[in-house]
Amino acid sequence: MRDFSNDMENLSLNTATVRQRWNLEQIIDGCARHGIVDISPWRDQVADCGLEKSAKLIRDAGLTVSALCRGGMFPAADARGRQAAIDDNCRAIDEAVALGSRSLVLVVGGLPEGSRDLEGAREQVLDGMRSIQEYALSCNMPLAIEPLHPMYAADRACVNTLKQALDMCDRLGEGVGVAVDVYHVWWDPELREQIMRAGRSGKLFGYHVCDWMVPTQDLLLDRGMMGDGVIDLKKIRGWVEEAGFNGKCEVEIFSAENWWKKDPDEVLKTCIERHQSVV
Amino acid sequence: MRDFSNDMENLSLNTATVRQRWNLEQIIDGCARHGIVDISPWRDQVADCGLEKSAKLIRDAGLTVSALCRGGMFPAADARGRQAAIDDNCRAIDEAVALGSRSLVLVVGGLPEGSRDLEGAREQVLDGMRSIQEYALSCNMPLAIEPLHPMYAADRACVNTLKQALDMCDRLGEGVGVAVDVYHVWWDPELREQIMRAGRSGKLFGYHVCDWMVPTQDLLLDRGMMGDGVIDLKKIRGWVEEAGFNGKCEVEIFSAENWWKKDPDEVLKTCIERHQSVV
Repeated sequence: MRDFSNDMENLSLNTATVRQRWNLEQIIDGCARHGIVDISPWRDQVADCGLEKSAKLIRDAGLTVSALCRGGMFPAADARGRQAAIDDNCRAIDEAVALGSRSLVLVVGGLPEGSRDLEGAREQVLDGMRSIQEYALSCNMPLAIEPLHPMYAADRACVNTLKQALDMCDRLGEGVGVAVDVYHVWWDPELREQIMRAGRSGKLFGYHVCDWMVPTQDLLLDRGMMGDGVIDLKKIRGWVEEAGFNGKCEVEIFSAENWWKKDPDEVLKTCIERHQSVV
Repeated sequence: MRDFSNDMENLSLNTATVRQRWNLEQIIDGCARHGIVDISPWRDQVADCGLEKSAKLIRDAGLTVSALCRGGMFPAADARGRQAAIDDNCRAIDEAVALGSRSLVLVVGGLPEGSRDLEGAREQVLDGMRSIQEYALSCNMPLAIEPLHPMYAADRACVNTLKQALDMCDRLGEGVGVAVDVYHVWWDPELREQIMRAGRSGKLFGYHVCDWMVPTQDLLLDRGMMGDGVIDLKKIRGWVEEAGFNGKCEVEIFSAENWWKKDPDEVLKTCIERHQSVV
């Protein structure tokens, strides 16, 4: 396992972690100030700053980009909605290219409004992926499916286990892999086995860390800082690295009532300290 | 598939559904009044009423008992805690026998205080089950492991998929099966396959219904009434019956801010109406 005790090279900051008090420009400045070398920005933050300006700021600060967050959201109630999603994903690919991102993360979407057809939604995801795959390949932009925790199956992502995501990758083929976020998968009895499968097949495109708090107060916005919850982070990183992953560990914390309210400089310091001690 | 359009025989009321405004005696009266023929009571409600009195009231009202809720909670930080859990499970078996229950539901427990060792907790569950299995067999009391939604892995149950529960049953052998609650498993891509497996092996001891609300406001206490959420209830009952299940459909709704606040007579009416139309 890589020694992170003094590491700054393998930490990536998902910009959602400090999104409430800083815009993208401030985040980029903050990363430069704290010695963070890699980020994963969100599309809305990039749009607010402007795509070209974002790319220039990132470049000028010497940052690299692990991933752009996010494409996906494929299922829709009608053909027009599905086509709009495909078009939007193609724009996301263009933006990822413009930012020099190494991947585009996909949160695939849940049930269309008014639907209870989970299997149908999953088929719509496959169809949507097929519709953008060739374009992504032509742009050399890897697509990283992020399986989301089952509690998001209805409204955010109907791909809910690493096994399911990898089965989907097998059906899709080239250019498609997975982003493993401990928050979503830590509970999975098949986690080790599926991480190894992802590694063997060269599909492990990203690795995200945060923590699961007990109790969790909110389904979406109560993720914990690494070390504050119950996830055995070192064990899972051990598996990921055993599977051949040598990329960045991306810190992504949605925490409306706690970390998002703190001074972002303090948050970044804590991210670094925890990256070096508990991740 | 069984026709429930005028059915009262296959509805069981989990007493948690009206627990906030009625005690067990009132619930039993309410069931008699509404023509509900089967209940699944909780141990704390039985204890408040008294075990012998509860058994007599249930008998006198002509009710049957699908299951007693609940045993389990095996993992503990030390040997004393684990033994206390085993002792408590043996008492739960005795209570289930006294009530004439057809099974004892087990919510297996999560991580011990301060622990991040999920695999260890799962081993503790197996050990705990082994410690009570012989006693349960001697009492002819089937033990129904209820896999809980992955969002409860840390604090309530580290058995989080039907596959995992059935793998555990395979290791344990006789007298141990599963209770399938749609709330916990509806998202699972392997649900149909694992329901069939449970049926084939004679391990499908119980089936619980409610619904998944979008959005869900609380991790524990915001379950929906059948038909109000996004679960395809008829599809899943179809699978369960295809797998050979012909027992009761048990309504179990934890809903602190909605159903628990309503007039329990209205709640029971709604349960019956939904049982006959959307389950």
